[in-house]
Amino acid sequence: MAKVIDFQTDPSRYRHWKIRYEGAVAHLMMDVDEAGGLFEGYELKLNSYDLGVDIELADIVQRMRFEHPEVKAVVLQSGKERVFCAGANIRMLGGATHAHKVNFCKFTNETRNTFEVAGAESGQYYIAAVRGACAGGGYELALACDHIILTDDGSSSVALPEVPLLAVLPGTGGLTRVTDKRKVRRDHADVFCSIEEGIKGKRAKDWNLVDDVVPNTKFDELVAQRAREFAAKSGRPADAQGIALTALDRRIGEDGSLTYSSVEVEVDRAKRVGRVTVHGPKADEAPPADVAALHGQGASTWMLRVARELDDAILHLRNNELEVGVLVFRAQGDPALVAAHEAFLLDSRSDWLANEILLYWKRVLKRVDLTSRSLVALVEPGSCFAGPLAELLFAVDRSYMAEGDFEGDNRPVATITLTAGNFGPYPMSNDLTRLQTRFLGEPGKVEEARARIGEPLEAFDANELGLVTFCFDDIDWEDEVRIFLEERASFSPDAMTGMEANLRFPGPETMETRIFGRLTAWQNWIFQRPNAVGDTGALKRYGTGVRGEYDMKRV
Amino acid sequence: MAKVIDFQTDPSRYRHWKIRYEGAVAHLMMDVDEAGGLFEGYELKLNSYDLGVDIELADIVQRMRFEHPEVKAVVLQSGKERVFCAGANIRMLGGATHAHKVNFCKFTNETRNTFEVAGAESGQYYIAAVRGACAGGGYELALACDHIILTDDGSSSVALPEVPLLAVLPGTGGLTRVTDKRKVRRDHADVFCSIEEGIKGKRAKDWNLVDDVVPNTKFDELVAQRAREFAAKSGRPADAQGIALTALDRRIGEDGSLTYSSVEVEVDRAKRVGRVTVHGPKADEAPPADVAALHGQGASTWMLRVARELDDAILHLRNNELEVGVLVFRAQGDPALVAAHEAFLLDSRSDWLANEILLYWKRVLKRVDLTSRSLVALVEPGSCFAGPLAELLFAVDRSYMAEGDFEGDNRPVATITLTAGNFGPYPMSNDLTRLQTRFLGEPGKVEEARARIGEPLEAFDANELGLVTFCFDDIDWEDEVRIFLEERASFSPDAMTGMEANLRFPGPETMETRIFGRLTAWQNWIFQRPNAVGDTGALKRYGTGVRGEYDMKRV
Repeated sequence: MAKVIDFQTDPSRYRHWKIRYEGAVAHLMMDVDEAGGLFEGYELKLNSYDLGVDIELADIVQRMRFEHPEVKAVVLQSGKERVFCAGANIRMLGGATHAHKVNFCKFTNETRNTFEVAGAESGQYYIAAVRGACAGGGYELALACDHIILTDDGSSSVALPEVPLLAVLPGTGGLTRVTDKRKVRRDHADVFCSIEEGIKGKRAKDWNLVDDVVPNTKFDELVAQRAREFAAKSGRPADAQGIALTALDRRIGEDGSLTYSSVEVEVDRAKRVGRVTVHGPKADEAPPADVAALHGQGASTWMLRVARELDDAILHLRNNELEVGVLVFRAQGDPALVAAHEAFLLDSRSDWLANEILLYWKRVLKRVDLTSRSLVALVEPGSCFAGPLAELLFAVDRSYMAEGDFEGDNRPVATITLTAGNFGPYPMSNDLTRLQTRFLGEPGKVEEARARIGEPLEAFDANELGLVTFCFDDIDWEDEVRIFLEERASFSPDAMTGMEANLRFPGPETMETRIFGRLTAWQNWIFQRPNAVGDTGALKRYGTGVRGEYDMKRV
Repeated sequence: MAKVIDFQTDPSRYRHWKIRYEGAVAHLMMDVDEAGGLFEGYELKLNSYDLGVDIELADIVQRMRFEHPEVKAVVLQSGKERVFCAGANIRMLGGATHAHKVNFCKFTNETRNTFEVAGAESGQYYIAAVRGACAGGGYELALACDHIILTDDGSSSVALPEVPLLAVLPGTGGLTRVTDKRKVRRDHADVFCSIEEGIKGKRAKDWNLVDDVVPNTKFDELVAQRAREFAAKSGRPADAQGIALTALDRRIGEDGSLTYSSVEVEVDRAKRVGRVTVHGPKADEAPPADVAALHGQGASTWMLRVARELDDAILHLRNNELEVGVLVFRAQGDPALVAAHEAFLLDSRSDWLANEILLYWKRVLKRVDLTSRSLVALVEPGSCFAGPLAELLFAVDRSYMAEGDFEGDNRPVATITLTAGNFGPYPMSNDLTRLQTRFLGEPGKVEEARARIGEPLEAFDANELGLVTFCFDDIDWEDEVRIFLEERASFSPDAMTGMEANLRFPGPETMETRIFGRLTAWQNWIFQRPNAVGDTGALKRYGTGVRGEYDMKRV
């Protein structure tokens, strides 16, 4: 599996999904092309999916927000007879490396989260209309919707058969959404998750596994009715015109480098370091004059362009540069201009597009939080860590800031600029802002920081305010940064992953933190256990007709 | 490591700890006997510990609550020069099976939690007085105390060197207590957990890693002062007389069976099922007439006796019967008598001993929740699932209740009796009662259940109230239970462990749930990874002078 995985796609290239737009309602049909697997060695039977299918889904969900603002309800259905979706493809999982399994699950989880919040955040509700078997990852797709309708045809069922059948967990949020979103009684959950064949009809409704159970003859009617009801709840403007998410301006180098319009990535494979530089708006690139101008700029407006580029860069690095252990973030440009672009959007939030761009930043920054590489920010002369880019400073594991003038460097002295954006619009998955999370033990520091909004803060002030980890002057800077990067890249990657997963999310928990923290960690553990992945394990034996052979010791 | 691990000990057998009682203050000295390891193959150098050391500590903490009610502050110190505690013994960990590592960490975590809450729950505060190196599990011991005092002698430090040195996590609550209890800023936490040599002096205090840093010459004085201050905060009676925790009445059979005065355990190794039967008080065993009578009964009073026996049985099964995948709980006796014994304690909570016994039940029931075996309860004719024993019904993964008369069985028809005890005094580690957790999705059901306190509820009512999972009559009972047990015991133990860890703790999270949920799961994952436990992994190579060799792929 060494080919480059590309997270960019567009409707002309979809192989697995069909969409029909009917005013406020979009009909999204999963119809997986068996022969369209991302890798060799498996067929995507029974609407099972691999990463390629999910990349298309993520693209659809994203375009729905930007290109189809008129959509208020999305009905998710199957294009196959007798099966809604059989979940992740087991042969693919059985043959995948541990790293690919983990990256695959992380991305599918992020995609589920994205459409799960689309309703609450921007009035685009997802309804799962389930006919046929809806198993494992298939039911997890449904669970992430706002509403689940199941036909009562005597055979259609919902199921989480992973544990009895495959000796792994329903790891794409399944267990957590059963307990925390649908609040299924825990003994019912225990029964449900132990039954290969799943649960159908009245019991599925009684146990709150679905919202509606309806005779097959009334299925379409109820689906249409629910779509109308959800659309009526939505506050989205009916007459909005979408913008086109045009193809990214991106070049991928042989050496792993990525060059976008405003983001550059340099990969130093020998040192196991990836360097991500975000460029602020160009000097003549003022914020849009008004909302009409914003819509005119569309995908080329700086805030949206950078978010898309950063998002793609992170996904690329995660999936294609597995040995890069440390990501170094830099930001170069005019901080006042970055702040101005963000301020325009914050002031224009009543416009759906301005709002969507800010919501997208929220998702991109969460993607950074959840990236299991050591994250560092370097605040150097000429930096523009302001507003959304300053959030990167609070997303990383630690930050270094240059103090005072650097010999032979005529860029402006390093500063950090806080904006209103650092105090609300981009919460982490624990539902706190990054500054609230940072100052859990000293909540007063959040207010101290808020009082300094708009000031270009130099190293002394930034340090006093607790915004950076270390400050070094010209004399020490290079050595300190180099020694740190060398040391960090030498540590066991697994220990770093575990440590960072625990240190980055203090404070309250949400369904999201539980999915990425607890559920994912247990799944990763199981993905290492011989009972699942060994030669006689259940994942390897799947489809051979022979059951997995287990070491029965409980751990 | 096949010998039977015994969790019972007493002061006459301690090898690793010394205690000096001085009125309200107890001086607890860790002075590990290098040659006193529980297994062969390692020496417990530098106050490092293994399970045997921790079994003694757990015994000390428990006896402190019952035998020394006059103690209000416990000062934890080292009996060695220049080292407070070096943490878990690495050679022991390097040679241990995966199951032993996991069980070891679970028990040490439970013990830390026990003395962590001793202050808030019953006014017995723990103070860590740190001189010398306090590293890894050593610092985790200190972290679980109410207060940490570090001497400023130029070399004494606190450290979590696991990640850089051993490629594993500080898994005995270390990471979680740093972020959630001490609320260390996350970038400081990142730095701290990456530095082998740890942090000393002023910075340790500035980063809130310790509460006091004091010159060595003033160390003893400050320790004494803090002990007095904490003792002054305590509401414990000064003149209370302890009761002796006499040796358990226990027989261990060759076949794995355990027979206590009121608890019986039968181990069916072929079926991989352990059957735990709790017997209610005998017909002539009325609750104590008054508090004086309770003190007179001491360790023989039914509520305390059963709690101790059940606790020991669970620990025995966890550690000595690894292939037992399912634990079946039964309760036989007079439910009214069980409820009466509990009611006496609930009514007498102003008495320290009554209170301690209830707090102990809280701990034992948490131990059940955290037992990674499938847990089932069978409510059969003659059952006494009332009050504390009814909690077992809500702790298990699912329950079966016998409906109506059973042919040839002249025991009373199966019932469940709720008491005030099911609505408060035994919260789970998520800080909710088991009934609140059970009915997260239908909070009204908790009130419905509360309205039925004291009624012996037969199957129909118990089922309507949602207190049991399934009811079967005489005709179906045996087959249904047998088929379930056979099926359950055939599933992959790892998948069950992961599933149960996710399903048992819905709802809010606490530091405790995060330690057992998130932190433990990541640690278990790392404990499977070749970078830690492979032949060239850091744990295996520790002490050889050669660093671990890592697969640098990030996951």
